[in-house]
Amino acid sequence: MRSGAIPCINGERLLQRLRDLAQIGATPGGGVTRLALSDEDRAGRDLLASWMAEAGLEWRVDDVGNMTGYRRGKTNEPPVLIGSHADTVLRGGKYDGAYGVLGALEAIETLNDLDIETERAVALVNWTNEEGVRFEPAMTCSGVAAGRFTAEEIYAKTDRDGLRFEDELRRISYFGDAANRPLPAAAYIELHIEQGPVLEAAGQPVGIVGGIVGITWNEVTIQGQADHAGPSPMHLRHDALTAASHVIAGVERLAIEQDDTAVATVGRLAIAPNIINTIPGTAVFSVDFRHRDPAVLDLQVERLRNLVNQISQERGVEGQVNRFWTSEPTPFDPTVVGAIRNAVSTLGLPEHELWSGAGHDAKYVADVCPAGMIFVCSKGGLSHCETESSSAKDLIAGANVLLLATIELAG
Amino acid sequence: MRSGAIPCINGERLLQRLRDLAQIGATPGGGVTRLALSDEDRAGRDLLASWMAEAGLEWRVDDVGNMTGYRRGKTNEPPVLIGSHADTVLRGGKYDGAYGVLGALEAIETLNDLDIETERAVALVNWTNEEGVRFEPAMTCSGVAAGRFTAEEIYAKTDRDGLRFEDELRRISYFGDAANRPLPAAAYIELHIEQGPVLEAAGQPVGIVGGIVGITWNEVTIQGQADHAGPSPMHLRHDALTAASHVIAGVERLAIEQDDTAVATVGRLAIAPNIINTIPGTAVFSVDFRHRDPAVLDLQVERLRNLVNQISQERGVEGQVNRFWTSEPTPFDPTVVGAIRNAVSTLGLPEHELWSGAGHDAKYVADVCPAGMIFVCSKGGLSHCETESSSAKDLIAGANVLLLATIELAG
Repeated sequence: MRSGAIPCINGERLLQRLRDLAQIGATPGGGVTRLALSDEDRAGRDLLASWMAEAGLEWRVDDVGNMTGYRRGKTNEPPVLIGSHADTVLRGGKYDGAYGVLGALEAIETLNDLDIETERAVALVNWTNEEGVRFEPAMTCSGVAAGRFTAEEIYAKTDRDGLRFEDELRRISYFGDAANRPLPAAAYIELHIEQGPVLEAAGQPVGIVGGIVGITWNEVTIQGQADHAGPSPMHLRHDALTAASHVIAGVERLAIEQDDTAVATVGRLAIAPNIINTIPGTAVFSVDFRHRDPAVLDLQVERLRNLVNQISQERGVEGQVNRFWTSEPTPFDPTVVGAIRNAVSTLGLPEHELWSGAGHDAKYVADVCPAGMIFVCSKGGLSHCETESSSAKDLIAGANVLLLATIELAG
Repeated sequence: MRSGAIPCINGERLLQRLRDLAQIGATPGGGVTRLALSDEDRAGRDLLASWMAEAGLEWRVDDVGNMTGYRRGKTNEPPVLIGSHADTVLRGGKYDGAYGVLGALEAIETLNDLDIETERAVALVNWTNEEGVRFEPAMTCSGVAAGRFTAEEIYAKTDRDGLRFEDELRRISYFGDAANRPLPAAAYIELHIEQGPVLEAAGQPVGIVGGIVGITWNEVTIQGQADHAGPSPMHLRHDALTAASHVIAGVERLAIEQDDTAVATVGRLAIAPNIINTIPGTAVFSVDFRHRDPAVLDLQVERLRNLVNQISQERGVEGQVNRFWTSEPTPFDPTVVGAIRNAVSTLGLPEHELWSGAGHDAKYVADVCPAGMIFVCSKGGLSHCETESSSAKDLIAGANVLLLATIELAG
């Protein structure tokens, strides 16, 4: 890198490519529907492939459709991998995923424009089926590259219409070779919109992501006694919903009292018989705890059990907690996070570190490769909706951070 | 009435008739399904008609199928009307309704057995479609007799299969003449199982019913902001369900803090989007308040509005309360209640007064005629289920109360 000049991306080119890609699958409400392995996904991939070719990248497709475009380095050492995913949810936004892919393309084109040679190759990746909306679960193909799933497991996944992943991958002509998988790599950086309200609330354009929080899902069942709303005096009731209400209020307190980063959510709730003039006999609800420390997750579940037991005893109901799924926290690699922090500092941006509350391809990649993420501010914290948005200024700032961090890591 | 002897019913005859009627529509689980105007209802009516004829009653059917059997008095003054309904809910019990009809028949047969002459006639009534399970709403045909509904309104009601009330009434051959309606009457007494846990908890066989509580139904809507469970810190959330939980806990307190007779129930609740990893954006739930004083119902709704406003302000959500239906309290007639109390006292039973938390035919009858009710203890407080039960001893005690109160009111 030439001393004395801070390289910076071509912001207008980045924004124009974001607009162009958003035309593919554009919805009347101003968003995008580009489900994995759909015709729109194919058209988006074709456009990306043409841009990669124009940028002089050698691009390849692996056996689950992951696309990788290589810009050669001075050595044959494993590349610095940068990218995200081009698929979207139903009626999603223009930036979730696409921004990370096109930000990576923009960083590479800037290296070209400025004739910057790096020791390591720099590679752009477009991961298949990150959203998991059409083929569950999410992040299937970064998962295959990282060894979490086999390709065969993913091939067998079917969508709502019974169409198989493998058949759809072949149909859109993006079935490639296992030898073309994007990993191993020397490092992985993913640029992404925050999808949350933290950066906006803090007035920050860019966030340095320290890791991805752990998640644990629990199902709480409260069994009381259904009864007529009229003839049962309050002191003779065993109302499952009033018991559940006290637990739900308590779950919120567990997060607040833990620390500023802990969250807890009751998102799903069903009561039975769910009739206006009948005391609820059963309440079943989910509790989602997230934290960066796995010990805190364990502690929160323990506190939930105690809370449910205590309230159940007080109210003469039966309470059960079933912890049925856990995703361990993923702290990002200090070297990669350090390169991102250096980039933020070089650009004179405020250094704001936060953790991701949601999963990303970087989570699985981090299993096998030093990884990190850059967030940019989401307006209103919104995502997975047509009104998802980030300012041009913040989008450009984030891509510049990616560029500088990539240059540092690629040497 | 002959001095020195307390008349009493033939308990075994009453219990045998309860068993016989329960054969019609008997379910494998030990209950009864005898929906209004079904083949089973017809068979039950035919059996009742044969028993009325055996007892020497002149029986008639009115234009909505209400059956009335008259035992003449010394005068032509309006009769004392006693009875209940023979229809049941789906997989209901053997006693809800049937006990009041057969208890009334037993009281009349006892008058016959003991050659007791009364000033006024005593008439047994079997109201059509009290349950409202097949043709909504409940208590349609006591409602017609009391002027709450016209027969034409009820004729037009259809069941789930689109069958009309009038057609079904004609099909089972119980379409009679409006001139045969059971009202006016000098007084009305309805004997019924409690369908609640109060008498059992108090160790009482029989309850003197002071009236039927008023009911008011409200729908509360909490509008917050749906968001991903991960990226939204607790202090930036507008969670509709945690807000609703505080309201639901508060609704319970409103009833407990009012007085021992107040009840409040949240029976129905829906949240959206109701997804495990999404903060609920909307919660809609019902609040059912019941009390014997209409001013307290108004006060409870006012307190609910204040509670919803306060919690909404604290939590940055929008809360609304829609009071959409009210049934005024129905205090029973002091003379009828007094006659029931005298009967309880004469029999040496403990005098326990309570109000009915649920509706009964007596509610509409009370609009146009002095009315009262007698409750007997329901095991476990259960009803509208196959395991609904009352002890033989209590069933006999309740019928004896009906007998003595009828004698007092008929003179």
